[in-house]
Amino acid sequence: MKKLINAPESVLADALAGIAAAHPDLAVDKEARIITRAGAAASGKVALVSGGGSGHEPLHGGFVGHGMLSAACPGEVFTSPVPDQMLAAARAVDRGAGVVFIVKNYTGDVMNFEMAADLAADDGISVATVLVDDDVAVKDSTWTAGRRGTGATVLVEKIAGALAEAGGDLAAVAELGTRVNKASRSFAVALTACTTPASGKPGFDLGEDEMEVGVGIHGEPGRSREKLRPAAEIVGIALDAILADHDLTAGDEVIVLANGLGGTPLIELYVVFAEVAAILAAQGIRIARSLVGNYVTSLDMAGVSLTVCKADEQMLALWDAPVNTPALRWGV
Amino acid sequence: MKKLINAPESVLADALAGIAAAHPDLAVDKEARIITRAGAAASGKVALVSGGGSGHEPLHGGFVGHGMLSAACPGEVFTSPVPDQMLAAARAVDRGAGVVFIVKNYTGDVMNFEMAADLAADDGISVATVLVDDDVAVKDSTWTAGRRGTGATVLVEKIAGALAEAGGDLAAVAELGTRVNKASRSFAVALTACTTPASGKPGFDLGEDEMEVGVGIHGEPGRSREKLRPAAEIVGIALDAILADHDLTAGDEVIVLANGLGGTPLIELYVVFAEVAAILAAQGIRIARSLVGNYVTSLDMAGVSLTVCKADEQMLALWDAPVNTPALRWGV
Repeated sequence: MKKLINAPESVLADALAGIAAAHPDLAVDKEARIITRAGAAASGKVALVSGGGSGHEPLHGGFVGHGMLSAACPGEVFTSPVPDQMLAAARAVDRGAGVVFIVKNYTGDVMNFEMAADLAADDGISVATVLVDDDVAVKDSTWTAGRRGTGATVLVEKIAGALAEAGGDLAAVAELGTRVNKASRSFAVALTACTTPASGKPGFDLGEDEMEVGVGIHGEPGRSREKLRPAAEIVGIALDAILADHDLTAGDEVIVLANGLGGTPLIELYVVFAEVAAILAAQGIRIARSLVGNYVTSLDMAGVSLTVCKADEQMLALWDAPVNTPALRWGV
Repeated sequence: MKKLINAPESVLADALAGIAAAHPDLAVDKEARIITRAGAAASGKVALVSGGGSGHEPLHGGFVGHGMLSAACPGEVFTSPVPDQMLAAARAVDRGAGVVFIVKNYTGDVMNFEMAADLAADDGISVATVLVDDDVAVKDSTWTAGRRGTGATVLVEKIAGALAEAGGDLAAVAELGTRVNKASRSFAVALTACTTPASGKPGFDLGEDEMEVGVGIHGEPGRSREKLRPAAEIVGIALDAILADHDLTAGDEVIVLANGLGGTPLIELYVVFAEVAAILAAQGIRIARSLVGNYVTSLDMAGVSLTVCKADEQMLALWDAPVNTPALRWGV
């Protein structure tokens, strides 16, 4: 295993120290393992809390800041955070208007966020939950009942976060987050497996000429293992799966995320995005907004995930609203 | 070789198509192979042009935009662009106030930018050149006479770009760019070699327990090949080399870039940055600003480069000035 770490057991603590040192706009509680915005939150606004296993950076800590998350709870690598973290985050950021939990659909995360919501309710904090389950590749995979939550998380956090910043109430913010998730579909292809610090070896074996089609963000199995193909064909496979599950028609506007899984150079993501643009253009679907880069990673996995969200005017306006986080920043 | 590409010979053209599709604020001339800002440049301002081999994305195209570069000229992977590209870029962006060429110190780039400067002068365009040679690892390496240009390029482009945007004249912008370079030192460590699309195999062999200390951004040899060590020790080696060559003393303010080489997960870069912050703090050196992420990559190489720039008040103020590019964006 080749990693820039001190020891497998200290990765999360060391990374949190680095996040604290790099981002003065964030407050990192290394004991409670929560990342919040530095300074007092505006009172009366709905707070957004997300979290999940580490190893997907910048998700979620990199999305804490004005216009997006109020707090993030990072678990150990590929391991759900515990309810106490989520409860501490909810207590830290609730300003009386309630808290939205944004939860990727993995069994551990769902269970722990549910427990935290119960504990928060006992504290008098109103909690609504948005479940993200955008990955069309498989149903009931490793660690998941139903579909897995992946790239759409970024879109949900950005768009719902903008509504919360604009003063939307708890029900409206949660409803919008759910609507963004329902409007989104994702599909990923891995060229290599990722290696967790704890295991020290790749999570699965992939031949020198093979790719995993429909892979999950922890290296969960996809739909098939196939021979590696040119980028245009790989994008074709991913978009076929996405569009077959979607209700897009010519004239629709979409937000597209071409997301690197951690070990893929940016030049390759641009090659991929060119193919995405060509295929969608041929179908009359307009890419209204896009992100190309590493947003929801899988440690050192080489590969790409594509997310397509059918966006209405409200979503686009909120997408464009100011955001000031380590990983997404514009308008401020 | 596992890459998300269509064919080795089409990587640059395909990536340019992706950049064009992803960034409506940029204008991509696929024939001339130059990337400029969309829309007309403000007249009377100095223009900044940079370029170099591809494979280092987001450098340089990702730094084109308000407050930073006026144009970028991407060559083939790890290959200098040709003088005609640089001349076309200078012609496209000169508004009568002259053009600054920002050139990383590699023999081919230096020669081609010099030829382009002569051609531009024949056209009546005033050109000044800033040479970036911040890598303290080695002198006279593969493809280089003198030191290699690496991470400081981002700082030079940001800070000199802000002065140009503020109306600085040609001499002042070039002088500042040179001053930022002289105030910066970099050092890189690779855990894996990178693979160019054309060669299809890693540029050098590195054992399962080895790292290349002082590596160049094309995989050029460094100072030594050593056993892999914990992140704290790797950072210690890199900062020792940087600080031994620098004139930093307690109380100084620095800008630090902790830069991923393309195949390194962000969580590891944060682990690295925590060690950087601890070492500099122990010496009384204050990190006034920082970047943690992938800015000057080497295709899929795993590893990190550190850049430390001794920053004066003017540099910090210009660092904070608004910038609106794909890879750096704040204040707008």
